[in-house]
Amino acid sequence: MSSRTRIVVAGATGLVGEELLCVLAERGHADRELLPLAPGGARRNVTFAGRSLPCVEPTAATFTEGDLVFLAVDAVTAVDLARRALDAGACVVDNSSAFRADPEVPLVLPEVNGDELHREPAPRLLANPNCSTAMLLVALEPLRAAFGIARVEVATYQAVSGAGRALVDELEQSTAAALAGRAHEPRALPFAAAFNVWPHESEVAEDTLANGEEQKIVAETRRIWRAPQLPIDASCARVPTRRAHCQAVTVTLASSTTLDDVRARLAAAPGVHLHAATALGATGGDDVLVDRIRWATSELDRAPHERRRLCLWLACDQLRKGAALNAVQLAESAGWLAAGRRRAAARHAEQAP
Amino acid sequence: MSSRTRIVVAGATGLVGEELLCVLAERGHADRELLPLAPGGARRNVTFAGRSLPCVEPTAATFTEGDLVFLAVDAVTAVDLARRALDAGACVVDNSSAFRADPEVPLVLPEVNGDELHREPAPRLLANPNCSTAMLLVALEPLRAAFGIARVEVATYQAVSGAGRALVDELEQSTAAALAGRAHEPRALPFAAAFNVWPHESEVAEDTLANGEEQKIVAETRRIWRAPQLPIDASCARVPTRRAHCQAVTVTLASSTTLDDVRARLAAAPGVHLHAATALGATGGDDVLVDRIRWATSELDRAPHERRRLCLWLACDQLRKGAALNAVQLAESAGWLAAGRRRAAARHAEQAP
Repeated sequence: MSSRTRIVVAGATGLVGEELLCVLAERGHADRELLPLAPGGARRNVTFAGRSLPCVEPTAATFTEGDLVFLAVDAVTAVDLARRALDAGACVVDNSSAFRADPEVPLVLPEVNGDELHREPAPRLLANPNCSTAMLLVALEPLRAAFGIARVEVATYQAVSGAGRALVDELEQSTAAALAGRAHEPRALPFAAAFNVWPHESEVAEDTLANGEEQKIVAETRRIWRAPQLPIDASCARVPTRRAHCQAVTVTLASSTTLDDVRARLAAAPGVHLHAATALGATGGDDVLVDRIRWATSELDRAPHERRRLCLWLACDQLRKGAALNAVQLAESAGWLAAGRRRAAARHAEQAP
Repeated sequence: MSSRTRIVVAGATGLVGEELLCVLAERGHADRELLPLAPGGARRNVTFAGRSLPCVEPTAATFTEGDLVFLAVDAVTAVDLARRALDAGACVVDNSSAFRADPEVPLVLPEVNGDELHREPAPRLLANPNCSTAMLLVALEPLRAAFGIARVEVATYQAVSGAGRALVDELEQSTAAALAGRAHEPRALPFAAAFNVWPHESEVAEDTLANGEEQKIVAETRRIWRAPQLPIDASCARVPTRRAHCQAVTVTLASSTTLDDVRARLAAAPGVHLHAATALGATGGDDVLVDRIRWATSELDRAPHERRRLCLWLACDQLRKGAALNAVQLAESAGWLAAGRRRAAARHAEQAP
């Protein structure tokens, strides 16, 4: 399919929408016609490749056949806009969770299951994985491909920007108040965000007691890897950071290997950078930073050729690879956009330890 | 043994030292004679039960036979001061890691292995466990006692006050700079603390690649539980919080049970409070807050009577139960101080969600 003629970004004033505009411009799509959408009340302009563009409210007449539509809106709005865009003949990449469990809609990380993009008939709607799933699988895919994976355990350290601008504002305002010794009434959460850590605020399922983020990691990992029985445990928490998630991962390989081999596979993998991994170090970068590659302590009692339980520490800008960057890569990989330019230098190089 | 006549606190101007003075006063020891020690340059006064007391520099003549000495100093200084105090006939509780692996020195959490205090001959030197170990084992001991424990996995979310006042100051200063958009040159760490997450900064062992905190959790858990082969994996990280650690824990029980039974055992356990667990919610409290009791996702595919892999989320003020509070409880349990009063109300009740 040739490149679509116009790019439409729904939710252009949100954190993911803004990052989409940045990523599109960075990757060589700055000369494309771009239509930013925002809810009626927004009446805001956004900046795309140095141009200030007014947002418009999406209507039934908004979408046309040539459009490439990125949806960076909530799941309910996404269902509505996706249907309108598809009916008009547009192609759609959705960032929400609305279609991630729909077998008709490919859920894709190009580094992992890019073959899903080449189904027949060619899909016109693609689902972008959850941010925590994306960083986890980009890092683990080279190990799965080489050694097989028998079990995954992950604890997340998630930035507040994953919950949108309101929680970023709340973190900054409550932190300023805490530093000044002033009281601050929490609004976005039922407790203070400043200097706090809390279980991920997504809804807890009554049956499994897993929160929404944990459910997404489990379901999406099993789907993307086509491993519906994969034993995977997730424990998701928020930390008082603005951007970039970290993860403590323990992965049980299906076959034993050496740490040198693990490092070599990771070093050669697309989207992975072996590097000191901190939240700030990952901020603004494209890659999943992988650090602290080691055998689990409990594995050290086993003979080297029997070791399979591996620990990793990851950091990744969840607004980029976990959202906007992967969305644009999906459109590029599907042929809806010309192949994108990789960023000349990862921004994390300037900020990392 | 009757109560010692004088309490000496070495490192009285540090974060743990200050908390020791608070805990001693709160628990009914405010009327005791107290001698605060600080390095020569300190020349500071500390407050104990409303009285301002000048710190003195420890010398060979500082300690006398009746003293109860709390050491809240680095491990090298602790070895020196402990020897001097023991030579003078004093009793010592050490907060550092200096003696934690010494089989001659009991390493004790009263809720777990208080029987170690009643060895013959009666010990005069006690080691206080690492903060992360303490909160983990207080929470898991009721499960170990009831069901046995086959494996422990823990990921930590540790506050900067665990590294001392310099890192707290750095977090606050760098955060204020970040909020104001000002540059801040990191001093206590090789990278910025503000709005950052990083692997625990303790030294990484060349052989195991575990950092110091991870090594402590593994070695101390195995020692305190007298389970030298226990499979235990730890992954330790710092988050930009001032106080109270959180932990994502997965524990494999030796025998199956129900979540209701797990909750009942935890609810009845000393030092444990089933409660929404956040870093701020735990700050200032005595208890380990235990939250999100659930089966690991991977366990949900098994029949209920086969489920053994349990997830928990913990929060605990690491300067209290992880340091000062346990130190005072050790002295009380050893008979060196009268039995302490439990705090009338846990402070976390005011702050928790």
